[in-house]
Amino acid sequence: MSAISGGVGSARFCAGLVRNLDPRELTIVVNTGDDERIRGLLICPDIDTVLYHLSASTDWTRGWGLAAETFVADERYKELASRLGGDADLQAWFALGDRDLATHQLRARLLDTGRTLTETTAAIARALDVEATIIPMSDEPVRTVLTIATGEELDFQEYFVHRRQADEIIEVAYSGAIKASPAPGVVDAISTADAVFIPPSNPILSIAPPLAIAGIRDALATAQGVRVGVSPIVGGKALKGPADRVLASLGHDVSPAGVARVYEGLLDVFVIDEADATYAPEIEELGMHAFVCDTIMSGPEEAARVAKTILDHVVHH
Amino acid sequence: MSAISGGVGSARFCAGLVRNLDPRELTIVVNTGDDERIRGLLICPDIDTVLYHLSASTDWTRGWGLAAETFVADERYKELASRLGGDADLQAWFALGDRDLATHQLRARLLDTGRTLTETTAAIARALDVEATIIPMSDEPVRTVLTIATGEELDFQEYFVHRRQADEIIEVAYSGAIKASPAPGVVDAISTADAVFIPPSNPILSIAPPLAIAGIRDALATAQGVRVGVSPIVGGKALKGPADRVLASLGHDVSPAGVARVYEGLLDVFVIDEADATYAPEIEELGMHAFVCDTIMSGPEEAARVAKTILDHVVHH
Repeated sequence: MSAISGGVGSARFCAGLVRNLDPRELTIVVNTGDDERIRGLLICPDIDTVLYHLSASTDWTRGWGLAAETFVADERYKELASRLGGDADLQAWFALGDRDLATHQLRARLLDTGRTLTETTAAIARALDVEATIIPMSDEPVRTVLTIATGEELDFQEYFVHRRQADEIIEVAYSGAIKASPAPGVVDAISTADAVFIPPSNPILSIAPPLAIAGIRDALATAQGVRVGVSPIVGGKALKGPADRVLASLGHDVSPAGVARVYEGLLDVFVIDEADATYAPEIEELGMHAFVCDTIMSGPEEAARVAKTILDHVVHH
Repeated sequence: MSAISGGVGSARFCAGLVRNLDPRELTIVVNTGDDERIRGLLICPDIDTVLYHLSASTDWTRGWGLAAETFVADERYKELASRLGGDADLQAWFALGDRDLATHQLRARLLDTGRTLTETTAAIARALDVEATIIPMSDEPVRTVLTIATGEELDFQEYFVHRRQADEIIEVAYSGAIKASPAPGVVDAISTADAVFIPPSNPILSIAPPLAIAGIRDALATAQGVRVGVSPIVGGKALKGPADRVLASLGHDVSPAGVARVYEGLLDVFVIDEADATYAPEIEELGMHAFVCDTIMSGPEEAARVAKTILDHVVHH
């Protein structure tokens, strides 16, 4: 099986999946549009969120970073930056835990010694005892660039972390996606899997970047297996993050149907929460089967149960 | 005044100097031949040793890093690296404290935003409340490369930290020195100072790299002020580090006179320890005045006293 993954919502769903199958049967293709050099080190937020969830070392509620984390380096950095006048350019607004830093340093070192991001990610997964295959969408840089109402262009982390998703987004571009190739293994994982999942992540900011790479979109459009999306919008709101506001400001319906429409032609089944059962007919009209179940993954057990329900009723039915 | 500085010995002496004069009157030109990317971040060991000593935030006895340091990121990194088989290439043999990491990240960020190493170093000094001017010897990379008895070439940190200075060095090269320019301010600081110090650091591994840059050597050779070296060899041994073994294996005398000979034509005064008073005539023969005093800097007070003695008797006499 495979999944095309963003951050927290995807990571939770994939953590649920590996509780129900041999992790080695799962390949997760991860968005790298949010990757950014922070304080000298390349940070891959979605890859790390997936890795930490799959190694059960994350803080589930916070949704990012490692559990039982300390922030000694981070506090010291903020202190030094404030003594330099607190220039936002110094990225003191980001938070990097001490144990998390080791991941970023290992990635940096592996890249410095000539490994690709794909090889680097596989090595970090091995170090974290993650048995599923985690692949970045591409070894080439693709950057999600957001144009906000003032006309300013923001990098993802600037929008997401520094400005706390407060700006109205009027345009999203996936810079570099046109010439980027899918990373080795990505197309095959999507084309030949018995099931491909698009877990409940932000369709515009997290799932659209991989799908902006032609080879990945084509692989999904022509995939052999059943293609299953899960709505990140429940009861008219995003479960996590700004998906609801982003959908609205870009003119999409803030509903499971609005999300399903973004994936038109790419999915066979769209899973919506019980709270949204009324949207089923609208989704069916898009040529997808609507499957209704409880989709709330407030902890690892709940995620395992949601994944099991979908595997039982949609994939193995 | 100015100093051409290596690591610990130089940093101790400069910390002593600023206890006896207005720190803003001192410019320290620091060796960058040992600089190396460690786990993705550029580490400038001698610059940091000087900065930490001058901000009184170092561990004086250990000689590197910050006092009251934690190693959460470091331990985690070593754990991850060991799960990948402990490949030496992953640099788990280096130690980076959590608070120290903030310095390296700040440096990386400042470099990423287009600052030179000179500008970056000035900013970090400001953040650490260091009032002396700290300048890298060059903004261009110069690397100290060591050829050992087996014929292998080692980077400095590989030799110094990983292999714990156990190898016999048969040749030392300062790669990049020929085409490197002195950093802005370096030549002026040396040419016009009323006194230029070469503090007690390894003459081959720490002081020779800056002097391998023609502009710096020429500035020292023609400096207006009194040029004062301090012997890093006391009683036939290096006070810190492998200077004694390096001198011996490269055919130099392991004595204050052996060190003075390395600086022939570049110094007016060479300061030797009371234990080595018998070397005074040999040093005078090299055309330098030999000044004998207690040079042992086992703590900040002792360093201040050594610096005061030299200032009183050699510079302001």
